[in-house]
Amino acid sequence: MNNSGEIQDLRAQLIEKYTAIRRFTEQLCEPLEKEDFVVQSMPDVSPTRWHLAHTAWFFETFILKPKLTDYETPNELYNYLFNSYYNAVGEQFTRAERGHLSRPTVDEVFAYRHHVDHEIIRLFETLDEHKISELESIFVLGLHHEQQHQELMLTDIKHVFFQNPIYPAYVEVESAKSIDNYQELSWTSFDGGQVQHGFSGSEFSFDNETPRHDVLIQPFELGNRLVTNREYLSFIKDGGYNQPALWLSDGWALINKEGWIAPLYWLHEENQWFEFTLSGLVPLNLDSPVTHLSYYEADAYANWCGARLPSEHEWEYAAQNLRIDGNFVQTQRYHPAPAEPATVSQLSQMFGDVWEWTRSPYTPYPGFKSASGAVGEYNGKFMSSQIVLRGGSCVSSSDHLRSTYRNFFYPHSRWQFMGIRLARDV
Amino acid sequence: MNNSGEIQDLRAQLIEKYTAIRRFTEQLCEPLEKEDFVVQSMPDVSPTRWHLAHTAWFFETFILKPKLTDYETPNELYNYLFNSYYNAVGEQFTRAERGHLSRPTVDEVFAYRHHVDHEIIRLFETLDEHKISELESIFVLGLHHEQQHQELMLTDIKHVFFQNPIYPAYVEVESAKSIDNYQELSWTSFDGGQVQHGFSGSEFSFDNETPRHDVLIQPFELGNRLVTNREYLSFIKDGGYNQPALWLSDGWALINKEGWIAPLYWLHEENQWFEFTLSGLVPLNLDSPVTHLSYYEADAYANWCGARLPSEHEWEYAAQNLRIDGNFVQTQRYHPAPAEPATVSQLSQMFGDVWEWTRSPYTPYPGFKSASGAVGEYNGKFMSSQIVLRGGSCVSSSDHLRSTYRNFFYPHSRWQFMGIRLARDV
Amino acid sequence: MNNSGEIQDLRAQLIEKYTAIRRFTEQLCEPLEKEDFVVQSMPDVSPTRWHLAHTAWFFETFILKPKLTDYETPNELYNYLFNSYYNAVGEQFTRAERGHLSRPTVDEVFAYRHHVDHEIIRLFETLDEHKISELESIFVLGLHHEQQHQELMLTDIKHVFFQNPIYPAYVEVESAKSIDNYQELSWTSFDGGQVQHGFSGSEFSFDNETPRHDVLIQPFELGNRLVTNREYLSFIKDGGYNQPALWLSDGWALINKEGWIAPLYWLHEENQWFEFTLSGLVPLNLDSPVTHLSYYEADAYANWCGARLPSEHEWEYAAQNLRIDGNFVQTQRYHPAPAEPATVSQLSQMFGDVWEWTRSPYTPYPGFKSASGAVGEYNGKFMSSQIVLRGGSCVSSSDHLRSTYRNFFYPHSRWQFMGIRLARDV
Amino acid sequence: MNNSGEIQDLRAQLIEKYTAIRRFTEQLCEPLEKEDFVVQSMPDVSPTRWHLAHTAWFFETFILKPKLTDYETPNELYNYLFNSYYNAVGEQFTRAERGHLSRPTVDEVFAYRHHVDHEIIRLFETLDEHKISELESIFVLGLHHEQQHQELMLTDIKHVFFQNPIYPAYVEVESAKSIDNYQELSWTSFDGGQVQHGFSGSEFSFDNETPRHDVLIQPFELGNRLVTNREYLSFIKDGGYNQPALWLSDGWALINKEGWIAPLYWLHEENQWFEFTLSGLVPLNLDSPVTHLSYYEADAYANWCGARLPSEHEWEYAAQNLRIDGNFVQTQRYHPAPAEPATVSQLSQMFGDVWEWTRSPYTPYPGFKSASGAVGEYNGKFMSSQIVLRGGSCVSSSDHLRSTYRNFFYPHSRWQFMGIRLARDV
Repeated sequence: MNNSGEIQDLRAQLIEKYTAIRRFTEQLCEPLEKEDFVVQSMPDVSPTRWHLAHTAWFFETFILKPKLTDYETPNELYNYLFNSYYNAVGEQFTRAERGHLSRPTVDEVFAYRHHVDHEIIRLFETLDEHKISELESIFVLGLHHEQQHQELMLTDIKHVFFQNPIYPAYVEVESAKSIDNYQELSWTSFDGGQVQHGFSGSEFSFDNETPRHDVLIQPFELGNRLVTNREYLSFIKDGGYNQPALWLSDGWALINKEGWIAPLYWLHEENQWFEFTLSGLVPLNLDSPVTHLSYYEADAYANWCGARLPSEHEWEYAAQNLRIDGNFVQTQRYHPAPAEPATVSQLSQMFGDVWEWTRSPYTPYPGFKSASGAVGEYNGKFMSSQIVLRGGSCVSSSDHLRSTYRNFFYPHSRWQFMGIRLARDV
Repeated sequence: MNNSGEIQDLRAQLIEKYTAIRRFTEQLCEPLEKEDFVVQSMPDVSPTRWHLAHTAWFFETFILKPKLTDYETPNELYNYLFNSYYNAVGEQFTRAERGHLSRPTVDEVFAYRHHVDHEIIRLFETLDEHKISELESIFVLGLHHEQQHQELMLTDIKHVFFQNPIYPAYVEVESAKSIDNYQELSWTSFDGGQVQHGFSGSEFSFDNETPRHDVLIQPFELGNRLVTNREYLSFIKDGGYNQPALWLSDGWALINKEGWIAPLYWLHEENQWFEFTLSGLVPLNLDSPVTHLSYYEADAYANWCGARLPSEHEWEYAAQNLRIDGNFVQTQRYHPAPAEPATVSQLSQMFGDVWEWTRSPYTPYPGFKSASGAVGEYNGKFMSSQIVLRGGSCVSSSDHLRSTYRNFFYPHSRWQFMGIRLARDV
Repeated sequence: MNNSGEIQDLRAQLIEKYTAIRRFTEQLCEPLEKEDFVVQSMPDVSPTRWHLAHTAWFFETFILKPKLTDYETPNELYNYLFNSYYNAVGEQFTRAERGHLSRPTVDEVFAYRHHVDHEIIRLFETLDEHKISELESIFVLGLHHEQQHQELMLTDIKHVFFQNPIYPAYVEVESAKSIDNYQELSWTSFDGGQVQHGFSGSEFSFDNETPRHDVLIQPFELGNRLVTNREYLSFIKDGGYNQPALWLSDGWALINKEGWIAPLYWLHEENQWFEFTLSGLVPLNLDSPVTHLSYYEADAYANWCGARLPSEHEWEYAAQNLRIDGNFVQTQRYHPAPAEPATVSQLSQMFGDVWEWTRSPYTPYPGFKSASGAVGEYNGKFMSSQIVLRGGSCVSSSDHLRSTYRNFFYPHSRWQFMGIRLARDV
Repeated sequence: MNNSGEIQDLRAQLIEKYTAIRRFTEQLCEPLEKEDFVVQSMPDVSPTRWHLAHTAWFFETFILKPKLTDYETPNELYNYLFNSYYNAVGEQFTRAERGHLSRPTVDEVFAYRHHVDHEIIRLFETLDEHKISELESIFVLGLHHEQQHQELMLTDIKHVFFQNPIYPAYVEVESAKSIDNYQELSWTSFDGGQVQHGFSGSEFSFDNETPRHDVLIQPFELGNRLVTNREYLSFIKDGGYNQPALWLSDGWALINKEGWIAPLYWLHEENQWFEFTLSGLVPLNLDSPVTHLSYYEADAYANWCGARLPSEHEWEYAAQNLRIDGNFVQTQRYHPAPAEPATVSQLSQMFGDVWEWTRSPYTPYPGFKSASGAVGEYNGKFMSSQIVLRGGSCVSSSDHLRSTYRNFFYPHSRWQFMGIRLARDV
């Protein structure tokens, strides 16, 4: 049997996928002015120019430098400037000071990307089938890495624009309509039992989704839709931010220190609530899913309801057979939207709209091993003090997501599209 | 059937236990000078005088004020000064500033304690059997609370004394001897399976140990003794603190920011390692269990060994049938000691010596409910960003411990007697 | 001519003075509990036990160690623990952590003092006349140094007690009475011209008061009494703390950052103003001089009045022929008091009550040279970013003051007895 | 007599001056990329786009809005975004976050400038002679304000570029040559006496230079040239940064906290000293004036030499009759340069090259009154905790300087072109 056709297909398929994903990154930059690429509004945020260069650096560092003998980098300092956190490949420029850099310029960064693109294609065109197959896993990791940064580019530029009292819009998208007589939250029950959890299969997954293993789940119910702004506003109006009994101790300390009284992008002006979106400042849509809140706020809200957040096991169990369907970056809304009224009597909005806080700390699965080599730093070393989120958001690519996908952030983080789905014991 | 004898027993038994535990708190203060009671060396540490008053406040607030109609507090401000974190019973004086207070004086604090003792006994002597039985659970909680603070008094005064270049000793105890030909670490295997985890029964437990529930455990091995100073020193000498690949990302950032190169109380002077103990500064005993290190250091050490930390499920499963035997506060060593050579071929040192870092974040058990009322703030609200430790230490009371006992601290904490037991997959 | 009589007198006189001043330090401690000696409520404040030991250390370090051949210190570490800032005689324990120390105990500190006292007297009794005369200047410096710390002991313990919601009193002194029909502020005019400024003479002065030199003073007027609480309250009620135009830029930033709306020890409760004093919390006496405010507040108040603060040249020129008379520590009020109505039509309260903020930055006089040796670190090295205050306070010793005396603090400091005398151009 | 010719001259002259100065601001931006305009590398630094907009805002706010009835601003928010610190005209966007803004874009900022330019000229063309004459003083203040920001644009972009390990050059200028046998420092003597100090006259000066008044100056000598890198390097090599006796107490604390061991832009690599300049990183020219050091370093250096810094009175007295000649921004070197060997036997480099730290705190002259209205906030409110510098720098415009000009910075500041001229008593 001859598999050169397959390999040919693999080569073509990888290059096609590469080209599409890399191009999409640049499409996302089209609405930006050059000045926008430079700003870092807090240490968690990176300037757009850094994301663009870092994703090129990833392919350069883990593929071109080791595999393309005559590869030449445009600038030896890029390895220092655009390495995020891979200690095994060298020191890194201080993360919190990425916004202190104006050079290389945006044009130079795009030239760097195109240089890398050109060299990647040159490499692939000369590799034999065996070599291509060997490279596939790191290459596909690079593409998923790029998609992660596409999402971060949007959430980061949103944070950047929010600092500006002009409230610039990334794009003008019409806001979702409010919905008359939006349904009360209903619930779907699950029996639980001893079930398989985590990824196994030949497709791509991140290392942190493996190994697949058994877990015990007790019977539970999941809310059929995301918690809405209307519901969260009731919590606020009921004094939710003033009742310590609802809060984790760390959360109570945090909201008091920071003076938080609402989700990150909410503004109360002239007796009306507004929300900053990638389309600028708009009146709060009461039927849209609440978003940009911390784990502490999600947990306090759930307590106030007499419910709780789901564990990541429960969430994955409920999601395992669902289609990956919903409001993603491809929808070009760049904001969560109300579930279709027709669908909310069943489990809806599981993928897209907002990342859903679980109650599960981000820890290794039993038997987890990091990948060997520098990419072993990808996930495992962050397994402390963070919380798992599931499902993807309105700025995720749908083909980047899986039911086993584990996103993770510190419990105080709010600048991603994070939201709430409730769970409860039966 | 008449149970008045039982109640008589219960009354007598509770008062006897109360008297013994309360007296022990004060015995622990005997080596201290008045000045020692005042100092707070960091926000996590409380002055001894605060511990003494807070434990009296607990009985006053949760028993005397609600149950003894004519109870009079010596000073209405004590509720503000000596409430730790119970928002339901009022505001609290700022924790980090407890060391800014010199009044009430130590004598006044002891008088407060004796006032509370007197009133508790007066209350108990007048209560009928039914009332005593109703009070039992909060009363016994108060006693366990007191025992927790006994331990904190010792770990806190150790931290206070360590700030002082005079290196005062709490008591002069002869150091444990080094042991010739100390055995290599050996391992005990466990099959795992679906097992019961957590507390159930009629004896006392904290709410966070319940409900008892099923968990799945995969086969594992546990190190038969604690990691020693000698072993940890090998890690240091091998450059353990300079190899980012061994560390969680948060840990690597922390040790670099703080300049940590060894456990908290280690000092390197004139080419020799010393350790600050409650008996002052002494040469490091290489065979004693390593202690006073963070979760990050414990985890990095385990990585360096090719092992890992146990989960709390594994630990509890291994400990469930063991006698609570070991080096506790009653031993009056106030420092971990080498396991007896005869015992280290089996699982030893599971209780006492040092709290053992697990790899388990501190989260609620499935179906966990906090107690109702103010004491519901006891444990549940701390269930974020902390890590479970198991087994008790050389300054715990043995009758305070259980195999299901869950202690918890932030991963950066080092001032408790924390140490390492290794685990590994089979 | 034989001057042995004189020397005999000098020896006796120095020992008498030494004994009196050293004893007074200890008398000031009589109202304190042992616990009070330990607390450091902010980095600027030192624990009482530190003041007691440091003033002994001064005589030990600059007299006993260099001059008494067989002198033995009780503890070699005291040189590290009780050196304030003299780099030439060794390193210093971190200032901000003085409150982390409980040992040596208060009793041990007193024993240290008495050891030094004993040795000082032994030294003096054996020195010949020439040697005594050589030592006089450093010895008298030590006595003035001791008096400075007597004042600091009182201002520091006031700050310590203020942290405590019990508001302990140092001593119970009856508050000054309010005065009916207290006089409007009147002014005394001065012609100015080219005048002599600074100290010259054979009596003691600090190095920073020299050399005496010519200065030019333009005609000016000085307020005849200190600004009162009543007047300062009018400034507050007129929105003084909300009008940026009245404030230096640094001051405006500071009051907004710190949330200052009144002097340090003022409390507004149930619609009434109280003031914390060394006799505890008392209703604000409207006729007493306002005190415990920063340079920025003093300057803003003066702007609000259309006046200004005096320069140190103006103040000294006005004070040069006045008797050092007023409300000092000997009065045992420990608080500023209204000027006698009879006197306020002339320049009154120039000495005592409160240190008066001048508008003069603390800089070297033309031709200033620091003393040689370690005591050269006494004053000169602080000549940046501080402001001169003049006149002494209600907790200064009268025999410690002079018209040429320059006290100095950072413009944000408030915990000393600082107040306001107005000046204006003619 | 008809003075319409004069007014015609005044109008033409003001517009000509305006046009030239405003154009020069924009010329200074020509070497920059758009990305460079955005970055704020520390709170003291402002982004170039902010300087450009703020200087337009000044003319808009103090001239166009009050005087041009039909004036329309491009954006009402500019008053909030581009007001620096004038509380009287409204609130200000947080200074430390100017680098968080990318909009208005650079093009929009230039359009704002050109809008203001157009309207200023329209205003002037319609004003009658009387009105022009009334406006002259605020208008000329605006021009001097613009020149101050021209200097800041260069010092700020230098700081921005220094953060970048690429070390971008603003322009490529050939470095000054080293000079063989550079002369030892020689001195010029001055008699002093009672002299006039400060500005008087009909030309422009800032309010802080007035009123002219008498001061007493004692005989002194001034170093004939600036201290060189060679000399400062000797101080470093002699352990200057390790000898506390040379330093003010605040300075000693600062250099230890910050780890300073050399001036701001010095780098020691491979056993050689480099200096970052507006032409990039170059080997240290030993004969050039040392620059970018704090007051504390200047003062410590002077102590090390047995000299001192001059007072501002001494400096002005020595400079009063000198021509304003030297190395200014017009020279287009953008870096201090060695004095011509021929000139250094006399007082040289008094103007240009570097701002010279004096020993004089920045305080009001006797009788000083701030201008009325919002521009009264220009200088007076900064008169605390700063130090006067004199003479101008290599990035000052020569027609912006005067012998009475008082620049001022905090003693820790280093990012301006600050240097050292020595003085000593006779």
